[in-house]
Amino acid sequence: MSAVVQSKTNPGNFFEDFEVGQVIRHATPRTVTEGDRAVYGSLYPTRFAVPSSAAFAASVGLDPHPVEELVAFHIAFGKTVPDVSLNAVANLGYAECRFHRPVVPGDTLSTTSEVIGLKQNSNGKSGVVYVRSTATNQRGEVALDWARWVMVHKRDAGAPAPETVVPTLAPALAAADLVVPAGLDFSSYDFEAAGEPHRFGDYAVGEKIDHVDGVTLTESEHQQATRLWQNTAKVHFNVEARPDGRNLVYGGHVISMARALSFNGLANAALIAAINAGAHTAPAFAGDTVYAWSEVLDKAETDASGVGALRLRLVATKGRDESMTLRGEDGKYAPGVLLDLDYWAFVPR
Amino acid sequence: MSAVVQSKTNPGNFFEDFEVGQVIRHATPRTVTEGDRAVYGSLYPTRFAVPSSAAFAASVGLDPHPVEELVAFHIAFGKTVPDVSLNAVANLGYAECRFHRPVVPGDTLSTTSEVIGLKQNSNGKSGVVYVRSTATNQRGEVALDWARWVMVHKRDAGAPAPETVVPTLAPALAAADLVVPAGLDFSSYDFEAAGEPHRFGDYAVGEKIDHVDGVTLTESEHQQATRLWQNTAKVHFNVEARPDGRNLVYGGHVISMARALSFNGLANAALIAAINAGAHTAPAFAGDTVYAWSEVLDKAETDASGVGALRLRLVATKGRDESMTLRGEDGKYAPGVLLDLDYWAFVPR
Amino acid sequence: MSAVVQSKTNPGNFFEDFEVGQVIRHATPRTVTEGDRAVYGSLYPTRFAVPSSAAFAASVGLDPHPVEELVAFHIAFGKTVPDVSLNAVANLGYAECRFHRPVVPGDTLSTTSEVIGLKQNSNGKSGVVYVRSTATNQRGEVALDWARWVMVHKRDAGAPAPETVVPTLAPALAAADLVVPAGLDFSSYDFEAAGEPHRFGDYAVGEKIDHVDGVTLTESEHQQATRLWQNTAKVHFNVEARPDGRNLVYGGHVISMARALSFNGLANAALIAAINAGAHTAPAFAGDTVYAWSEVLDKAETDASGVGALRLRLVATKGRDESMTLRGEDGKYAPGVLLDLDYWAFVPR
Repeated sequence: MSAVVQSKTNPGNFFEDFEVGQVIRHATPRTVTEGDRAVYGSLYPTRFAVPSSAAFAASVGLDPHPVEELVAFHIAFGKTVPDVSLNAVANLGYAECRFHRPVVPGDTLSTTSEVIGLKQNSNGKSGVVYVRSTATNQRGEVALDWARWVMVHKRDAGAPAPETVVPTLAPALAAADLVVPAGLDFSSYDFEAAGEPHRFGDYAVGEKIDHVDGVTLTESEHQQATRLWQNTAKVHFNVEARPDGRNLVYGGHVISMARALSFNGLANAALIAAINAGAHTAPAFAGDTVYAWSEVLDKAETDASGVGALRLRLVATKGRDESMTLRGEDGKYAPGVLLDLDYWAFVPR
Repeated sequence: MSAVVQSKTNPGNFFEDFEVGQVIRHATPRTVTEGDRAVYGSLYPTRFAVPSSAAFAASVGLDPHPVEELVAFHIAFGKTVPDVSLNAVANLGYAECRFHRPVVPGDTLSTTSEVIGLKQNSNGKSGVVYVRSTATNQRGEVALDWARWVMVHKRDAGAPAPETVVPTLAPALAAADLVVPAGLDFSSYDFEAAGEPHRFGDYAVGEKIDHVDGVTLTESEHQQATRLWQNTAKVHFNVEARPDGRNLVYGGHVISMARALSFNGLANAALIAAINAGAHTAPAFAGDTVYAWSEVLDKAETDASGVGALRLRLVATKGRDESMTLRGEDGKYAPGVLLDLDYWAFVPR
Repeated sequence: MSAVVQSKTNPGNFFEDFEVGQVIRHATPRTVTEGDRAVYGSLYPTRFAVPSSAAFAASVGLDPHPVEELVAFHIAFGKTVPDVSLNAVANLGYAECRFHRPVVPGDTLSTTSEVIGLKQNSNGKSGVVYVRSTATNQRGEVALDWARWVMVHKRDAGAPAPETVVPTLAPALAAADLVVPAGLDFSSYDFEAAGEPHRFGDYAVGEKIDHVDGVTLTESEHQQATRLWQNTAKVHFNVEARPDGRNLVYGGHVISMARALSFNGLANAALIAAINAGAHTAPAFAGDTVYAWSEVLDKAETDASGVGALRLRLVATKGRDESMTLRGEDGKYAPGVLLDLDYWAFVPR
């Protein structure tokens, strides 16, 4: 009976289970609802006008009413966990995450991943797996896609190493590669309703913005968020899963918290267009108070009416750092830095 | 760069930033959804038949299905915080809050405030700001309005005092001023489905009702509730924001908890028609166990079929007070009293 | 005034308030929404494809999109608490719970109970009340029904004992009595999307499955869940209600958690068809880490295309028990067992 028992539960994939070119169709499709918008709003202090208001969204050409891009990101990403990173030693990074169209209540998201690279570590015990994942809606249209690489255990250290294939990934998407949602028009954007007067022209490359506010993480909230995305990585939910008896906060929770906090100063960074890179530089736990600051990395115009794009670095910190220091003199991330996220946002010109 | 940084984030308004007659259009519009109903139901033990059941609501003439009046109140109120009370020393009170029409999923609420009074304190460091706020839906119809006054810091103690203007606010709305929702008809109200047999005629002015049940507040729940309303006052979320390292519970959380508890004895106080006054008499924190009792202050008939109105005092206490004592012999609120709320409710005759 | 006060609040029914044949119509009707699906998904790690995806549900003949059967169960069950078990000494069991049709957002559930048995205890201080409860939707169609028996205090130990009536309840529903939802067709079931390849023929009677994962219960989450079902039993919410100052976790929270955990190995136990019996064998509290294992008790075919039925024992434990031991040599439940649930599920053949 023991063998049967073993075969029914998912042990996850180990390094030697992956091969370049392999396509994994992840379970389970997930329909987005207005309920997701409400739960998200109870977990993050989000006030961006487009996802907050159907009327505002319609006034900029988005009807039906999209949910936050990060709702789609977390759902799509969560599906890959059981197949890609259940046996991960570490999530090393992601890149080239592009939002192709708004996700609206009623959309059903499914995610597929293709293995695009493999590199066994010199210790022979683990290796790096590169995948490109694509989330589509119920009509087969691409909602978002991204690349990701994780370090995964080998089941058997003696298994032969695969040929090393390391994909070329862009350090950042070019502005020309961003997809402006069909119909988006910021030409009559209502700055007063949105909460701040600052527009594309008011931001300068190199400018830093301290978002001032902080939120103390609670145990229930990070778990509810993570579960909402059907992300079942046990380190987030089971105090018996880690030697320190603490639940690790899902990195995506820190992303969403920092994004929501960034409203104060970036209220008009209305839509996330792409995520260029993300580094979770330190673990977060319940009880930590998370703050955020941003730096303007680049600016670009788009062809859409009134729509510009800002490339931003969003940094989450444990405790407030008014000096907004990313790295120390040694080049390492400064103490307290939790997240270094590089993304593009659409803003009114 | 420092000046630029300062200008991007919202420092809130100080006393000298207000002037009588000034109109503030608050960010951000917010669409109410069925998700809000569900999250609300997970945070408060609410069982009132109208918001609980679309079928029951339709049977009393309300279709589409309204959410609780307090959902609309908290959302509308939360919008005023960044502009009116970010630098508040204290929330002093509110009055003349009137619900003009039910709010239903799909409605987008926006709030505007007019400054109706100013009075600098004798110490010259702060002053009282009176505003009348109005929340409208996406069709421009008034959903609710209310007056509120808060004590706000001055940025500069040397700034000249404005002319003192103190508005006249009614201690309670007259029954004749209540707005019965269009179509409301309690003539075939189903008392058994609603949970209690008590009708208008069963309540006597002066009668007190101990609602018996208590709920212990948790850290996550009060924060989720407050965040749902996009109320971002930092004292609720950031343990580093107060010297005692504790998160203050949003006063509206205590209102909603007490209202939900009042079901036991006031199940047929079906709709809140108006809030005459509210005093948050002591702070509440996670771990406190909240109980409630009510007193019937007044009664009135309405022109609508089967609809009466009860004016009620709703008192929330920390710990149960079976003696239902509002004030001690010294005239001060009795120990344990958290909330003294004066409101009108529509009940079946 | 005191007498008036007493009469307004619900003291619950005592043993002598029940009589065989009595029908109780419970308050309050409750409309199910997409918000419930989202909140449920934030509280439990559920990934079953039918409730997760409207597109998947439609592909197996279920459109509109049903919520989890346990959502309907908890809502319907919660309604009975104020009338049946407010003065319960203990919930002794339930049986013959049958799901007659899927519940979908927009459905309004109402519950009625008929007293089908009474048996005073020999101590004269309490007695067992047997009820059969039926939840119907807004069209009067039966959504689910079940039998339940609880031990209830007598108000007056001197009250005469009623005639003893003990109903005959089946230890398990026969497969022939299960109701396959109209239109259900598993003939083109997408196993890859659902997350596991195991079908009807892959499960053997006697087989046990360790679901591997565990979840540490939090205080807020179990309360939010219980409140969502309008279950107001005070032991779940009020630390002053129990001598140990702890909030007891609602038994239904453990059922939902175990059901969600069982995805890992039983992903294709797609729909709950019936609950034959349930024993809550030990109390659960925040901080406990819940695991689950299952045993296949029986198998049956149905007339519906591609639809088989598995009778399963779902066991929740505090701490993982890889030995999957239900009872010790003394015949008593093994230490750590929290729940022993016997149910039927529909699975693809």
